[in-house]
Amino acid sequence: MQPVKIGLMGLGTVGGGTATVLLRNCDEIARRVGRKLEVVHAAARDIADQTILDPAKVKLSDDASSVVNDPDVDIVVELIGGYSPAKELVLKAIENGKHVVTANKALIALHGAEIFKAAEEKGVIVAYEAAVAGGIPIIKAVREGLSANQIEWVAGIINGTGNFILTEMRDKGRDFADVLKEAQELGYAEADPTFDVEGIDAAHKLTILASLSFGIPLQFDKTFTEGISKITREDVTFAEELGYRIKHLGIARKSANGIEMRVHPTLIPERRLIANVDGVMNAVLIKADAVGPTLYYGAGAGAEPTASAVVADLVDVARVMDSSPEQRVPMLGFRSDAMQDTPVVAHDEFETSYYIRMQADDRPGVLADVTSIFAANGISIEAVIQKEPKDGQTRVCLIMLTSLIVEKNMTKALSEIEALDSIEGDVTKIRLEHLD
Amino acid sequence: MQPVKIGLMGLGTVGGGTATVLLRNCDEIARRVGRKLEVVHAAARDIADQTILDPAKVKLSDDASSVVNDPDVDIVVELIGGYSPAKELVLKAIENGKHVVTANKALIALHGAEIFKAAEEKGVIVAYEAAVAGGIPIIKAVREGLSANQIEWVAGIINGTGNFILTEMRDKGRDFADVLKEAQELGYAEADPTFDVEGIDAAHKLTILASLSFGIPLQFDKTFTEGISKITREDVTFAEELGYRIKHLGIARKSANGIEMRVHPTLIPERRLIANVDGVMNAVLIKADAVGPTLYYGAGAGAEPTASAVVADLVDVARVMDSSPEQRVPMLGFRSDAMQDTPVVAHDEFETSYYIRMQADDRPGVLADVTSIFAANGISIEAVIQKEPKDGQTRVCLIMLTSLIVEKNMTKALSEIEALDSIEGDVTKIRLEHLD
Repeated sequence: MQPVKIGLMGLGTVGGGTATVLLRNCDEIARRVGRKLEVVHAAARDIADQTILDPAKVKLSDDASSVVNDPDVDIVVELIGGYSPAKELVLKAIENGKHVVTANKALIALHGAEIFKAAEEKGVIVAYEAAVAGGIPIIKAVREGLSANQIEWVAGIINGTGNFILTEMRDKGRDFADVLKEAQELGYAEADPTFDVEGIDAAHKLTILASLSFGIPLQFDKTFTEGISKITREDVTFAEELGYRIKHLGIARKSANGIEMRVHPTLIPERRLIANVDGVMNAVLIKADAVGPTLYYGAGAGAEPTASAVVADLVDVARVMDSSPEQRVPMLGFRSDAMQDTPVVAHDEFETSYYIRMQADDRPGVLADVTSIFAANGISIEAVIQKEPKDGQTRVCLIMLTSLIVEKNMTKALSEIEALDSIEGDVTKIRLEHLD
Repeated sequence: MQPVKIGLMGLGTVGGGTATVLLRNCDEIARRVGRKLEVVHAAARDIADQTILDPAKVKLSDDASSVVNDPDVDIVVELIGGYSPAKELVLKAIENGKHVVTANKALIALHGAEIFKAAEEKGVIVAYEAAVAGGIPIIKAVREGLSANQIEWVAGIINGTGNFILTEMRDKGRDFADVLKEAQELGYAEADPTFDVEGIDAAHKLTILASLSFGIPLQFDKTFTEGISKITREDVTFAEELGYRIKHLGIARKSANGIEMRVHPTLIPERRLIANVDGVMNAVLIKADAVGPTLYYGAGAGAEPTASAVVADLVDVARVMDSSPEQRVPMLGFRSDAMQDTPVVAHDEFETSYYIRMQADDRPGVLADVTSIFAANGISIEAVIQKEPKDGQTRVCLIMLTSLIVEKNMTKALSEIEALDSIEGDVTKIRLEHLD
């Protein structure tokens, strides 16, 4: 059979990795697909500097639109990132009848609906395995591997930078700011780390996972997001004393009130497998009605791990590109005419347990005041640690784990506690999930 | 679209689970596929006793051949197990132009070549996701999710009964025989536990994983198999003291000499995620050249977890049954005309580290004798524990971890050590893998 002809836009980390993997594993891939996957055209801003592709065999451009308009190209791979011009290029590729593979989570989370609609109308495929959890084939697992199930919830460590920071804080007792600086030096974190540490990147990925799991529209704007920049090394240590690890989780859950989509620091029992996923690694834990819990672990970023997912998409597209669109796996797992607009739950209705930490005066009655406020708001205390005041200090550190409680009740209780004369400053609250 | 018409053979644990999941999740599945999956015919020995399927809607037979010969049936699901009549029924279904879904690992491992050849000639699909690691979509992950990669090795906990026994031995300090008896009472282990504890079941699954990973023929007879019945609770404890867990692993590895396929008890570092997979759960760790390590975890057995995989196969078949056979994912991942008959490595050429335990006389020179023999055979010692003799005993327990060594050299060294007057009885050896 004829080779599949690929146009590559972007030759940065992931683009370079993709070109490298396609060249190195060309024969192994052809043994699987029955035809070769050939890069015929590539574009990048500094295309003259690239050293991976052979200019004698591959057209090279500094203008990405020449790739989407190249009649020789069957599949366009978008590895530029960001919203623009990625979106316009992808839509133009679709208009030109080309299939698209992308690793762009921001693009899919925000503009997926428009892009998938255009693709459906044109009968082409948009594949995006690399957009969530890098090299882990998690889109395929949710969309195809678990297709027999009603998915109950998904909980993922889906940002490697954040997980690296939390792991270093725990392993070495370091502070957030200190580890972040190292992560930036190592190249794990961007100069502007907001996307990673404030959970925006994870929220993009969670938006996609929620849609795939429940057959709901992509709704990035309704995803609740809380970052890890306020987590202190004391919180990490106290959590450990209580038998928990703090992880930055993306959680999507179907509850009686609708769908919860939330990204936040979370205490999880240390015995859970996902609590032991360390460093830059990613993992996604899925609870589904027939299969029960399954977990998928691997590298969530990096040149070749991400390329692994991009090329797997190319293989999938190569296999089905000539079949009728009716027979293909729907782009969001559920058919577009079967999507349900289940309500999304507001964050003050989320029901979780909590880790609470506060500074209190070291005098009689303080614990009684605090616990009465919790009791009056329907909150049970499951565990307490009280740390004696350090030399010369008059305040004690009070840590509590609570039972399940609706967030708005917790917010009310904490505002009452913060108003007490005996409590200094803000009370720290971190959500706790048992994941069972 | 017309519903897909399913014929179900076997209504035991997995068959009952499959019928239950198809009924309960009928609507959710139709939202994904765009058509219903309907059981139209079911057969089981004691069909009159079944209570899941509605006799007003489903033909019920006590003769499975009536299912494979039913012109109404599009896909036959074989959940009878064993070699015969499963093999004859599957071949007859193929001859009749029906697609087949099976959970039968023994059948695929031993007769897969014949079955897949018949299916290719007839242009039908044989799907078997449930045959390896139950509900974990591991076939899909290897065959499609990692299709960009050259796979280096696969290491899996792929027998839940064995893992339950080893977990109980470690957690509760119990003996093998004692836990096995409980596992039989709980229904985790068969009355004849040979398939599970001697690694035959794991070897069936490993045979399939090796074929999928490397594009080699199914070769169950060349898979090296060693069971867990000789593991003592002392070994489990000593391993733990040294920072390791003992797991019954199936390992397939591409080495310079060819393909290694082996099932045996293995020490693995306790920090590895797979070392923390406990109880009846399964996990498969895969090292591949582009993505690096990825791990897949979930229930490896049970009614609904296995049904989850069976029904996922039904969904896959329903999606592509009307497409050209050329466009489908090859049954063993690689196209049948691209299989390679890479040599399989004999077990005396396997190179691993070892855990060694022996009973030695408590007198000067014994340790020197033992270590000289190891040195003479090129074996380095990485760690030693010597346990003082218990009251009234004159023998000490000597435990060693070795560096990497080819098995035949270890066998020679151990036979020399066993011949020493100062060593009592057989020396215990358990392989050790770092899995990095």
